[in-house]
Amino acid sequence: MTAMSALTLGCDVVVLERNPASPAATLATHALVGDWDDPAVLGRLASHVDVVTLENEFVDPQALEALERTGCMVWPRARTVALVQDKCLQKETLREAGIPVVPFRQVATVHDVHAAADEFGVPLVLKARRDAYDGRGNRTIRSRADVNEAWRALRDAGPRALYVEGWCEFTMELATIVTRGRDGAMVTYPVVETVQRDHVCHIVRAPARVAAEVARRVTALACAAAEAVDFVGSMGVECFLTSDGQVLVNELAPRVHNSGHYTIEACVTSQFENHVRAVLGLPLGSPRMVAPAAVMANMLGSRLGAARPAGLADALGVPGAHVHLYGKLMSGPGRKLGHVTALGATVEEAEAAATRAATAISFGEDL
Amino acid sequence: MTAMSALTLGCDVVVLERNPASPAATLATHALVGDWDDPAVLGRLASHVDVVTLENEFVDPQALEALERTGCMVWPRARTVALVQDKCLQKETLREAGIPVVPFRQVATVHDVHAAADEFGVPLVLKARRDAYDGRGNRTIRSRADVNEAWRALRDAGPRALYVEGWCEFTMELATIVTRGRDGAMVTYPVVETVQRDHVCHIVRAPARVAAEVARRVTALACAAAEAVDFVGSMGVECFLTSDGQVLVNELAPRVHNSGHYTIEACVTSQFENHVRAVLGLPLGSPRMVAPAAVMANMLGSRLGAARPAGLADALGVPGAHVHLYGKLMSGPGRKLGHVTALGATVEEAEAAATRAATAISFGEDL
Repeated sequence: MTAMSALTLGCDVVVLERNPASPAATLATHALVGDWDDPAVLGRLASHVDVVTLENEFVDPQALEALERTGCMVWPRARTVALVQDKCLQKETLREAGIPVVPFRQVATVHDVHAAADEFGVPLVLKARRDAYDGRGNRTIRSRADVNEAWRALRDAGPRALYVEGWCEFTMELATIVTRGRDGAMVTYPVVETVQRDHVCHIVRAPARVAAEVARRVTALACAAAEAVDFVGSMGVECFLTSDGQVLVNELAPRVHNSGHYTIEACVTSQFENHVRAVLGLPLGSPRMVAPAAVMANMLGSRLGAARPAGLADALGVPGAHVHLYGKLMSGPGRKLGHVTALGATVEEAEAAATRAATAISFGEDL
Repeated sequence: MTAMSALTLGCDVVVLERNPASPAATLATHALVGDWDDPAVLGRLASHVDVVTLENEFVDPQALEALERTGCMVWPRARTVALVQDKCLQKETLREAGIPVVPFRQVATVHDVHAAADEFGVPLVLKARRDAYDGRGNRTIRSRADVNEAWRALRDAGPRALYVEGWCEFTMELATIVTRGRDGAMVTYPVVETVQRDHVCHIVRAPARVAAEVARRVTALACAAAEAVDFVGSMGVECFLTSDGQVLVNELAPRVHNSGHYTIEACVTSQFENHVRAVLGLPLGSPRMVAPAAVMANMLGSRLGAARPAGLADALGVPGAHVHLYGKLMSGPGRKLGHVTALGATVEEAEAAATRAATAISFGEDL
């Protein structure tokens, strides 16, 4: 979706992907296949382009630094990626900037986890500091008896740094997209409700049905967070709204984000186009919604197999349903294969249409 | 723009182009380079795809027929392309269907042109029956003295069939897009005003500022025309509104059309997505506008050279301007290199923004 926006603005798009059959490579003016953690491969990329940007944050920051040393512009910067990638360091940075976050602490041994349980109580979440997403690399500790098993489970996957977070009893998960330009100018998109299913984004409702004052706080925290990590581009900011009305920043997604896919149809300028504008140093466009409400529903794979969609005609028969299929070759449990956005006079109306269209499509998944 | 819609719906896109560096080929899952009038090349295309559609109508209908005989689905059909491609046959077909058109007649010799001048008066337009567009292949005869020169000018370009049209003193040029499905279902987009400059589309204003009854007549004629030529897909229908309130069909553009580019941002479903839906036999989407008004301004090249855009930052600084650059490598006089669409509360507001952004961009055109 970022590549489509870049092409529409007249850019040549060069895609570096590990997978030779990636959907993005289809759109590329030039496609490179290689490991994005390999500085030599990144050097080949740099020789083709004026600006490098990222679609996921799981890239070795040292490789990005090597790229920057060649004089290539990388947005967001390597130091921003390093900082956000380590969720413990990310939270420290946010807390130092005065942004409310859930209680957390580094843990080096299983004894530190017990100490955290003393301090924060249970439930408690043990998390990998890096490379965790959509519930992967996380373990919820519901009682003291769970501590040792959680520790083993995450450590068994390999030696990696962990940290713990206190439990947040939220009433709603909120998110927003902030786009920050190279000059520090920012635009913020409407605050949305996100609904997760099995730790994966399932539904996004725009705008969130919260008091204007809550939305203003989310927006202010998102801007403060983008500045705290010196981000450039479009970034997702995920928050918790607690039962006593507090807003805490849960996590930064330093890239275009699933909670902003609805902006393609629902906003004057999509998160993707504004990301491209930001990294190219162009003026940012309006994030204003063009309809009173919009809802996005994800379409996820259910098992390993070919991602052959069925039911498209039924989905397109739903008035106002905007169907996006990503053209991925393979399905897998929880793999994001597409989404539907519907606009409406109310969130309820839009959600009915988006859900009806999204559930009409299934993926053949025949091997 | 059609390829982008097809990709978004999860299609693999195969592009056949004569030019190896075409913007569409960049988007293709698979690109073929070859002559689209060559049945062997079309056969290679057919071996890759389920459905073939056209982005321009200047394709040899016999080659398309050969393609159909292989069992490949071609939409629009070869016989539709043959009929629309010959502007004289097109007008005969429309007239037989009871659709008002300007007076016209076939001419085989220069004497026939004089006879037409007797019948219709002057001015008179001498036109090539095929392969004429954007003012190419047309000559206006303003007096009897012009006849011989106009005849020579068009015949000197090679032996080709010509016809003449009577002069239409119009007060406004109107157009609409009709999308017709494989099952005959149709949707029609808003009626728009088109403003030509040097015979090339310059500005499109949506909706046209005409009486509702006039818009209804244009819409009805567009539907009748799509049925008369048995069209499948999105088609542009260009009309004249005369000073005495008549609506005449001027010309059919049997493909997605410049007068419908505004639908990308301004309508629930764009002409491109509906074209893809139509040729795939999927339900058509709503053509309803999402804003009260929209204006599109074309960006044309001024001279032969590289099509390097300058001024993008200024154009994107215009609030609400949607800039589309096509990524063509070469510019040329009158060559369409991009367009800007702006939405607004009124046509006047949208036109001010679209024009300001479009004129901010120039093309380097350095060889």
